[in-house]
Formats: sequence, C-alpha cells, structure tokens
Amino acid sequence: MPSNLSSEPVDPKKPWTWAEAIWRERVASVRAGRSLKPAAWKDGARMAVALSFDSDHETIDLRNGGASAGRMSQGQYGARSGMPRILDVLERHGVPASIFMPAVSAMLHPEEVRRVAGAGHEIGIHSWIHEFNSVLDHETERDLSLRAADALERLSGTRPVGMRTASWDFSPYTLAIIREMGLLYDSSLMADDEPYELLEKGEATGVVEIPVEWIRDDAPYFNMDRMASARPYGGPAMLLDILRREVDLAFEEGGLFQVTLHPHHVGHRSRIFILDEIIRHAKAKGDVWFATHAEVARFCASEAGTTAC
Amino acid sequence: MPSNLSSEPVDPKKPWTWAEAIWRERVASVRAGRSLKPAAWKDGARMAVALSFDSDHETIDLRNGGASAGRMSQGQYGARSGMPRILDVLERHGVPASIFMPAVSAMLHPEEVRRVAGAGHEIGIHSWIHEFNSVLDHETERDLSLRAADALERLSGTRPVGMRTASWDFSPYTLAIIREMGLLYDSSLMADDEPYELLEKGEATGVVEIPVEWIRDDAPYFNMDRMASARPYGGPAMLLDILRREVDLAFEEGGLFQVTLHPHHVGHRSRIFILDEIIRHAKAKGDVWFATHAEVARFCASEAGTTAC
Amino acid sequence: MPSNLSSEPVDPKKPWTWAEAIWRERVASVRAGRSLKPAAWKDGARMAVALSFDSDHETIDLRNGGASAGRMSQGQYGARSGMPRILDVLERHGVPASIFMPAVSAMLHPEEVRRVAGAGHEIGIHSWIHEFNSVLDHETERDLSLRAADALERLSGTRPVGMRTASWDFSPYTLAIIREMGLLYDSSLMADDEPYELLEKGEATGVVEIPVEWIRDDAPYFNMDRMASARPYGGPAMLLDILRREVDLAFEEGGLFQVTLHPHHVGHRSRIFILDEIIRHAKAKGDVWFATHAEVARFCASEAGTTAC
Amino acid sequence: MPSNLSSEPVDPKKPWTWAEAIWRERVASVRAGRSLKPAAWKDGARMAVALSFDSDHETIDLRNGGASAGRMSQGQYGARSGMPRILDVLERHGVPASIFMPAVSAMLHPEEVRRVAGAGHEIGIHSWIHEFNSVLDHETERDLSLRAADALERLSGTRPVGMRTASWDFSPYTLAIIREMGLLYDSSLMADDEPYELLEKGEATGVVEIPVEWIRDDAPYFNMDRMASARPYGGPAMLLDILRREVDLAFEEGGLFQVTLHPHHVGHRSRIFILDEIIRHAKAKGDVWFATHAEVARFCASEAGTTAC
Repeated sequence: MPSNLSSEPVDPKKPWTWAEAIWRERVASVRAGRSLKPAAWKDGARMAVALSFDSDHETIDLRNGGASAGRMSQGQYGARSGMPRILDVLERHGVPASIFMPAVSAMLHPEEVRRVAGAGHEIGIHSWIHEFNSVLDHETERDLSLRAADALERLSGTRPVGMRTASWDFSPYTLAIIREMGLLYDSSLMADDEPYELLEKGEATGVVEIPVEWIRDDAPYFNMDRMASARPYGGPAMLLDILRREVDLAFEEGGLFQVTLHPHHVGHRSRIFILDEIIRHAKAKGDVWFATHAEVARFCASEAGTTAC
Repeated sequence: MPSNLSSEPVDPKKPWTWAEAIWRERVASVRAGRSLKPAAWKDGARMAVALSFDSDHETIDLRNGGASAGRMSQGQYGARSGMPRILDVLERHGVPASIFMPAVSAMLHPEEVRRVAGAGHEIGIHSWIHEFNSVLDHETERDLSLRAADALERLSGTRPVGMRTASWDFSPYTLAIIREMGLLYDSSLMADDEPYELLEKGEATGVVEIPVEWIRDDAPYFNMDRMASARPYGGPAMLLDILRREVDLAFEEGGLFQVTLHPHHVGHRSRIFILDEIIRHAKAKGDVWFATHAEVARFCASEAGTTAC
Repeated sequence: MPSNLSSEPVDPKKPWTWAEAIWRERVASVRAGRSLKPAAWKDGARMAVALSFDSDHETIDLRNGGASAGRMSQGQYGARSGMPRILDVLERHGVPASIFMPAVSAMLHPEEVRRVAGAGHEIGIHSWIHEFNSVLDHETERDLSLRAADALERLSGTRPVGMRTASWDFSPYTLAIIREMGLLYDSSLMADDEPYELLEKGEATGVVEIPVEWIRDDAPYFNMDRMASARPYGGPAMLLDILRREVDLAFEEGGLFQVTLHPHHVGHRSRIFILDEIIRHAKAKGDVWFATHAEVARFCASEAGTTAC
Repeated sequence: MPSNLSSEPVDPKKPWTWAEAIWRERVASVRAGRSLKPAAWKDGARMAVALSFDSDHETIDLRNGGASAGRMSQGQYGARSGMPRILDVLERHGVPASIFMPAVSAMLHPEEVRRVAGAGHEIGIHSWIHEFNSVLDHETERDLSLRAADALERLSGTRPVGMRTASWDFSPYTLAIIREMGLLYDSSLMADDEPYELLEKGEATGVVEIPVEWIRDDAPYFNMDRMASARPYGGPAMLLDILRREVDLAFEEGGLFQVTLHPHHVGHRSRIFILDEIIRHAKAKGDVWFATHAEVARFCASEAGTTAC
C-alpha cells in the first residue's frame, strides 16, 4: 500500500492533506529500532564516555566556495593550534577519542592523521569536503563516501568502520550507502541518548547508531558568521555546565555520554578547559569506560547480538 | 459602522491610514474580557500550578515536509526518551499535567496516550499535524480541529475539552471553531497571567483562556535549527531562574503559574532538572494546588459563573 | 559647496566614491552639539535618574498589520498586567517617570493615560501607531506627529513637550518637525550619555536630546518573534547586572542615568524585579534626583541657557 | 599546473567536483607560514599583551549609506564618549595600544588622532570608509588603501606600518597591496594565537600577521541592529570571563594575548570595566610586556630574522 500511495502526488507544504500511509512512511524511512544499551558497559563499568572531534579545518570554507581568507585561516587554526591542544589534553588524561575527518581535510593534514592514528584514536568518515548530503543525488553521495573511506584508509592505514555525515545532514540515501559499505555504525542521528539499531523502512539493519545532539556539540554555542546571524550565544562556562549535567544523568542512568567538539571551536585558549573539565568530571565518577565510537558500537552490537556485530 | 468600514480597502502595510473604526475592530477581534482569577484557588490554596507539555514529536518535521532524518530523529527522541523522563518526574511528585498532542503524534504513539491517560493527566487538542492555522481557510482548520478531537478521543477514551493551537498560531477562525466545538477553554493567548474570559468582537463567549507566554515556554530558549538562525540562547540554569521568578510572583499575587514544556526540549538529560526543581520550588511554598488546565478552567468558570461552566 | 555637491548623483552603496563634502554633509545632518550636562543636578544632586516606559501595547501588532491574535494579546498584556505592576513599583518608591505612548495606544487605553497623568508622570509623543518614520514622506510624518500631540493633549489635559520616535527611527524630517512643533526635547538618539543640544546641518537648534541606548532598553534582550529570529537572549539577571553598572558609572561621573522599558517586556512577573532593584540601587547612592525627561531637559536647558529653555 | 587548472571552469557551489589542485590552490592562496612566536618576549617577559581599538565611529553608518541618524549618533558616541573613557583607562594604567582608524573617521576626528598619537599609541590603517574589501576590484582597493595611509600620515605625522582590514574582510588582493605598500604587518587573520609569517601561494612574504579572533572582539557580543537579527548575546561579565581565560592560557603558553575592542561598544559605562579588569588581570601575572601591534610585529620579525624586519 505505501508504495502505491507514495507514487501519488504529495504536497510537502501541505502535510495535513497527506493520507495516513504517507506520513507513516515518512516517519518509518530511517528510524530508531531496539535500544542497544547494554546491561553494563565493558568490564562492568557504569558509564561509557565517547569523545569525538570533527576535524573539519579548511573544508568549512571550501564547502562554501573557498573564497574567504578569514574563514580559511580559522580552518587552519583548527589544524595548527586547536587539534594539538586537544590531543595534548587527551594524552595527559590517557583517554581515546574518535576523530571524524573530511577526506580533503585529511589530505591537507596527513601529519594530523598520523598523530591521531599513532595515539590510538579512531578515524571515522566525515564526507569528502564537508558537502551537504541533501543536495546530492544518490550516485554522487555514494561516490564521495567511498572515496572518503579510501582516502582515510590510505592515510591512516586503517579502514574506517563508522560514518558521521557532515553537518549531520543524513540524506534519503545515506543509510543505503552505509549498508552497502558494510559500516559498523553511524553517528549523525538523535533519537535517543543510548546506542540503538537503525531501521530502514521498518527493517532492522544491524547498523548501530551512536546518537549525537546539538546540545552536546560546541558549534551551536560558538559558531560565528559575520555575514549571517550566527554568533557565540553563550559563554564557555555555560557549555561546561550543560555537559556536566549530561554526564551526571548519563552516570545516573548507567548510560552513554557522547559529545561532539571541533578543533576550531573548543581548541581555543578560552575553551579548552571545557574538555579538560568534562574528562575530570566523568573520571571522578569512578566507574567509567572511555572508548572510541567504534568500540562502543562493537560492544553494544556484541552484547545485543545484532547482525552487524 | 465597523462592518461597513471593514469592507473598505485597507492597506495592512500602512496602518497609519486606517480609520479609527478599523483599528478598533482589529483590536476587538479576539480579546481578553473579565478576569477569571478566583478569590482563592481550590480548597483555599494560594497558588495554582498548571504544567503542560506539547508532545509534538515527529510532527514538527512532518509539518515542514518530513524530509529530514535528523529532525525526525529529534522528534522520536521526544517520544522515546523525553516523555518517559517527564512522566517519571510527574509520578515521583504526584502532580497532574496537561499534555497537548497533535493527532498525528498521538496516532504514532498510542502507547504514550495510554500511559498519559492512565496516569490521570489531561490530553488536549493541539492541531492535526502541527500545521500553522494562519495558512488555512476556515473550513480546513475546522475539519482538522474536529478530526483531531475525534482521534484523541478514540485513542484516550475521553473527549478533549481544551485546545492549544500549534505554535500558538491563533487564526481569525480559531475562536469560532472553539465555540462551535463547545470547548471549555483555549490555551494559546497571552493577555494576562491569570485565566480570563475570551471576547469575540466584544461579545463574551464563556470560553476560558488559560494564558501562555513564550517566557514560560522552553522552545524559545532551546530550539536549534541548523539552517535558520535559531540557536540555544541561554543555558538551562537561566530558564530555571526565570521560571522560579514567575512562580515567586504567582504565589505573591495569589495567582496561577502556567508553563509550557516540550519532551524534545526539556526532556533531555541536561534539562530535566528544570521540571523537577520548579515543582519542588512551587511545593515548598506550602499552599499550592497542582491541577490540569481543564481543572483550572472549570474551577475558574465555576467561581465566576460563566456560561461555559 | 555642499549644496552643489549634494545635487550630484551619489551611490549609497559605494560610499568610497563620495566626495568629502558629501560624507561631511551626511554626518552633519543631525548631530550632537554642546553637552548640556550641568555642573550639578537639581538641588546639588550628584546623579539624575530618568526612567521611561514606552506604552506601545497593541500598536506593535497594528503597525505590522494587526492580523495576529497572539501578538495583539501580548500588547493587551502590557496595558492589563504590565503597566499596573510598573505604576505600583513607581508609586511604592515615590519616583516620577516619562511614559511615551503612540496616540492609538492612548486612545485604546484612556484609563491608563488618566492614571499616569494623575500620578504626576510625564506623557510624551511616541508616533501615531508605532509607524517607522523612515518609510514616510515629510508631510505624512508631520501630520501624524501633530495629530499624536493633539490626541495626547486631549486625553491627558497637557500638551506634550517631548518626542520619542517609535523604534528610535529618526527620519531626515524628524528634527524639522520637532522644531516646527516647538518641542523642548527629543529622546531617540545616542551620541552621548549626557543630554546635549541637537545641531541641524551644523546649526544649534535649542532642542535638547535626552539620549537613549539599546543597552539601556529591555526590548533587545527580551523581544521574541516566532517567525523571525528574535529571541530572549539573556536572562533578567543579566539585564539587571548591565543596568547596575550603568548606574554605577553615571553616579561616578556625576551624570544622568536614563533607561527605556516596556510594559509588555519588563512588566512580566519574572522581570519586574529589575525595575524595583534598579530604583533601589540608585537610591542607595544617596544623592540622586529622580526626574521626568521633561524636567531633566528643562533643567539642562536652563543651566546652559539654550534658546529653547 | 595549478595555473592551468585555475583557468578551467570551477563551480564554487560544487566544491566536491573540484580537482585536488584547485582546492589546494584555494587553501594556499593566503596562509600562515612559520610561527614567529619568540623564545621569550622583550626583556624576557613571559607574555605579550597587544590591545587594539578600531575607531570606526561614523564610518559604520556611512559604509551602509549614511542614512540613519540613530546609527550615526552611535558612531559619534564612540568618538565623543567611548574613546575618551578608553584613553583614560590606558593612561591610568600606563599601557600602549594600537588604534586602527578608517581614514574618514580620522578626518572627522583629527583631535582624536592627535590625542592618540600624542599619548604614544600606534595608529594603523583600517580602510577608507569601512568598506568591505571583497566587493572591490584590485585597483579600487589599492587606491583606497594608499589614500588611507596618506590621510593617517598627514593627520598623525607618522606613516602607518600595519593594516587591519575593515570587518576583517581580507580580499584576494589585500596581501599583494600590503606587500606593495611595504607594510610590516597585517592584523586581520586567524590561523594562530601567535604571530606568524604570511605565505602568498606558498611563498614567504616577510609580512607579519598579528592574528585576531572574533572570540577576542567585543563586536560579536555587543552589536545590535534593530532591522537585522544582531542582538547583544551575552552580558559584559561573560566577555570578561572569556578574555580572562584567553589571558590565562596566553601566559601559561608564554605567548601573545591580542584583543580587538571598539569605542562604540566597550566604551560604554556598563562595559568599560572589561578593559580595566583585563589590564589588571594581565598585570597581576607579573611578567608581561604591553606593546603596540607594531612593536610586537617588529620584535617577532627581528627575533625570527624575517626579510621585512
């Protein structure tokens, strides 16, 4: 039935005219299935902490045409000043992280890829040049995803097992591409605080979702665009307060704390303390497993016995 | 006179050219009439507290065309993670609330409707699919309102007695529809802190307004839209500070404290404490009646002897 | 020379092509002349405090076409709930204020005009229906200004002596109209913290400017527009902190503290404490003259011996 | 190769279609080269502090067409009230600063230029009339830059040695113009916290970059535009907190703390304490060199032995 109905003309501006099958189909397109929250985390830990950094660097400006020397220099800051500060904090605390890099960013900064990989951090797919997936056709998105995986493997020596869409722009084709690529997990969606299995049109896919949220992303708080209205809306102390509260309830619920940070945002002098403090805050809970997104996904899949495990 | 004048051409962009009868007519169209603030609240309580939650879930994204997997997953979060946390807090404190649900949201989540109704909370009308009323003609808005009421009654077993327009978008037809449906109350307008009787073109309608305000709504503080400029503007501590001050003066004035929260906003780990703290803060005053919007409206109407009572 | 030059074609989008006489003419059009800050305030007070309230009420929505029941109800809130709370605070502290009212707002709320005037507060001109002056031609702006003054005089019994342009939208014709009307002062510009004499094309006008600033206006912090990106950007505690600092330096400098508040913003339960606290804070300095804008303007003009005095 | 490739048609909206040489060329156009952070600052100081003020005054409004009396008066405030307060604070603390002035601003305020120069502060180039460079062709930008330098030299008696582009709008021609003018430094880009040498298409230029950041600029936090969505997003206490953290890590890293402030923003009564406190905070570290941008650039160039030194 839905397949018949979906061939009818549907006005996206008038959803109140849609038949029930239409809106049910839209909702079911990509959806959270069963929770993959384990009874306990690795070695019985009460909380898992998955830190991630999107090393976009110059690709933010390239995505927009590459014409602004100022924005380009902000991108270079991420690689030159931000990422080293971040990696120092991670090293001092001895905790792993997942670094999601557009292929072009990795090709511009092979030394960063080597340092990241050498330190045992995970490197995940994050588009070709930070393009928005939703403006691409299926074939282009697929081609860029495959080339991105190849580039990261070539530079890091390891085939990535997870994907984070750039700007969390998960297109109608993204899940099919992830399945075709045989990836373990995605980390772009927001239907839960805990890992879950992705459903495609109601069908279990075995793909693990490590959910993200703008709440636990530094960009909405810190992004600044002179020509647009984006401004830094709250100070770094506000972001730390929010992340601490997220950690507190993650621990209370025996769950996962996941966070997405950017070298060109949190890597600044007035913000790096947020990363330091949030690691301290989590460690102080005493019973915590710091892991990469891949390790979390693999553990959850294994505990739950999903097909992709 | 006004009816004659209103047939004259009136330029909405040049209100300084309008005759006095025109702007008086506009102002009088839908208006606060007599205050329904009672001398004392039920059983002599000094303050009434009316908590409400708009369970929009996936309808926010469906209203916008249903094409974003990310926004859709945020909607699912509201149902999957946010609402359970909220209902747990309400249960722990033993306080009732009013849940306003678009019909499509209710049909997507019948288990939520059952849990909400089973816990004794009120379920109110909140559009069909979160459509903006002001883009609809009278007949369409009427049809959707009636179908929404039917759907909620079918799923919850109780006919709703109150309406909250989606996005508080009260159209030129909304009040006529509310009157035709024989509803007890509306909760979309902002002319007072206390309940009042709605006037239509100067005529008392017997319909109770339980006024809302963006100040006491979590969405303006927490909404985030990557493509638009909406960002989270203040931290959760700021919202709690604001709501505490609203409670303090409501108690001081012997009035009503009403608040509008959303599962996909306040339901998050870093924000749920706001609900908990605001209930504690109100309870600590000692002499407080927690009630649904319907109970408040019925009590006010009864004390005032309005026709709808 | 400038008059010749100004008849040349000038591209407003390419100011770098303008002859020097052109940009000097633009700068000189309306300008702060000599400071009217007195050696000491009335009776030797060290600081003057001039509180003002723009009682726009329903005219905000009428200015935009008068089609939104929600925005209209927010306007009614200003008259019904906000202004009474404000007047109570002023009465409790025994301090005067200046109320700027669009004529239409005054005609909609004659009882407010009577209460305000009866309490000894000043009523000043504030447009006809909150129109933007910069979209009007000279004749229309002049006509509306004159009609507004007439309406306020008719309702309050006193001819206004000062003007505040709606939205501080001071057009190329405003100063000429103020001079033609023989007004004592304007309160729409921002070239100083202290009163000053307005210059028109370099010529002293005798018109006193009581300067305002968005910093000392509650609207930028509290305005909320669902369809636009305006949101409440900082909590009430932030605004109080800012205003306290303004008071502190005004006192230190022996100057004027002027503030612009709105019944539909600061009049809310969670914000009215700001007015209360700021009056307390100023009073605690010990040596303060609370005055209307007209009293401040008259005192400054008198001390300085300007022509309008 | 790149020169050939760059003559191919390149779609700025589809960067994922670009050949590698294209995006590498874009990235390399203007870029941070070797760090010029010295082993120690002058006389062995551990931290350098470079304060700067962009004295834009009326040119902000002139740049936008010069038609708003309100915006123009805000510009005059910068010259009349803001800058004197700032210069008083600098004098009290005995610290130097760099003042960047559009030529038109300097011509409108020759007395400010004299006071600034007389106090030993540096005056740097800051466009002709605050124009956006990116809308100009090479010849126009060059002509305006040269005329701006001439005007500042004529008014201050000293030829400027550094440039800050207005709104940090560094065009594709800016670096070539800086080199042609033989300037010592630019201060418009953001690739590091420490001074660095600018590369043009991979070639070392000898031009020192004193990097800026929106984080250390008061405008993003304080700008207000009634018609646009710019609002003051955080209070002055938030900005002070951010700047203190920047100072703390600059000292810890033995680096440079650079800040960009505006007379019409930080010069207000409720904000001037930020400047005072940040100077105190830096001084309290004990081992600090306060210097102009030119002094910092010259010292760095000298220590590093760059060609421009």
